[in-house]
Amino acid sequence: MITSVQNETIKKIMKLKQKKYRDEENLFLVEGFHLVEEAKKAGCIQRVIATSENLLDQDGLLVSQKVMEKLAFTKTPQPIMAICRKPSHTSFQPSLERYLLLDGIQDPGNLGTIIRTALAFGYDQMILSPECVDLYNDKVIRATQGALFQMKICQMDLLEAISLLQENHVPIYATSLHHALSIEQYPIQKQMAFVLGNEGQGVSNEVLKQCDHALYIPIQSIDSLNVAIAGAIVMYHFPKV
Amino acid sequence: MITSVQNETIKKIMKLKQKKYRDEENLFLVEGFHLVEEAKKAGCIQRVIATSENLLDQDGLLVSQKVMEKLAFTKTPQPIMAICRKPSHTSFQPSLERYLLLDGIQDPGNLGTIIRTALAFGYDQMILSPECVDLYNDKVIRATQGALFQMKICQMDLLEAISLLQENHVPIYATSLHHALSIEQYPIQKQMAFVLGNEGQGVSNEVLKQCDHALYIPIQSIDSLNVAIAGAIVMYHFPKV
Repeated sequence: MITSVQNETIKKIMKLKQKKYRDEENLFLVEGFHLVEEAKKAGCIQRVIATSENLLDQDGLLVSQKVMEKLAFTKTPQPIMAICRKPSHTSFQPSLERYLLLDGIQDPGNLGTIIRTALAFGYDQMILSPECVDLYNDKVIRATQGALFQMKICQMDLLEAISLLQENHVPIYATSLHHALSIEQYPIQKQMAFVLGNEGQGVSNEVLKQCDHALYIPIQSIDSLNVAIAGAIVMYHFPKV
Repeated sequence: MITSVQNETIKKIMKLKQKKYRDEENLFLVEGFHLVEEAKKAGCIQRVIATSENLLDQDGLLVSQKVMEKLAFTKTPQPIMAICRKPSHTSFQPSLERYLLLDGIQDPGNLGTIIRTALAFGYDQMILSPECVDLYNDKVIRATQGALFQMKICQMDLLEAISLLQENHVPIYATSLHHALSIEQYPIQKQMAFVLGNEGQGVSNEVLKQCDHALYIPIQSIDSLNVAIAGAIVMYHFPKV
């Protein structure tokens, strides 16, 4: 059992809390029974870390409570974590029915919740702009509730994604508060792609210009909805046909 | 200008970060231009705090950057905060069209987002169980984006609220994953009340038993939606008639 937070293995694992090292090592951390279970199902586990031998297989890493508290993201951690290999991300797939493009989503909770919702509504592929918060940030992972292990996620420049979608005749709808039609005015199509924008600025002008349509959700009293809420309503409103 | 974080006035204001003192004083803090503006519109401001005289009226409190950083909730605060009087909460109003009941929502971001969404969709009154996270928690307020100054919110025991609604012939729909009908199977009524439950446990059994109906949102691949997402879809699906 490792009992020192100064242990070299522990120090290496701690580094995975930084995006730079996650990118270098192609690894990330998950915490708690539910996420470890989901990672296992997805075949992503490199090594399980736990405070009790019963929770470990042969390669597992047994650590003291103190070490677990150091490694964990939450204050009162569950007795289990895992080092996971980043799933090999899908490249853009041209003939799917529903795409969701994210333009610079910054809040980890929003990104995670959008992934969870997209999976729940059967959306086929998500495309994240390079400006989005890191997918392997612990708060993102927690908010996905494990959905990131199942969702097809592709990280690429949105302008490039938009031209690929357009080459494949997939209509692209940006969410926008200006020069847009109400969500109810657009008929449901077999293939559709939607773009959600940054929390403060919305969809960037350069992306907006390339989209085929703009839509808004009719609301009152307030300027806008939270982006994860707006995304959920768009996905609910435009189910697959 | 107050430059010391040891100043008695500052110490008193700091106490408002704790629910206990917010309850005792009937005051709370908001941070940043947008929320201070919304508080002003609602007539809730007791005192503005700022790092520049231009931002203050006669009663305002001028503080140094260091003091502002101590008072603020965020790491790089805007130059303005305000002490607000809690809005006098509405008591239960019997003849409204749309009610949203919250049973023990724990996450501040979820509570704030639900308030923002309820206002945006014109819901008339929200009823919060005593187990919900404090409405005046800074993260709740931030997530409302100011909507808490406009939404009619009533805090009371949910079983009591449910009997009042039933006396007034308002049908009550609990969100539930079990023994429920799909959201599409319920027709839109003139008056409707919906109950959303705790993030982990959902609507409690004792509340569920008293509701007239149970509904779920059809999803796939995953057990449940985030509660703020589920609430948004229910409100979008059942607009006022």
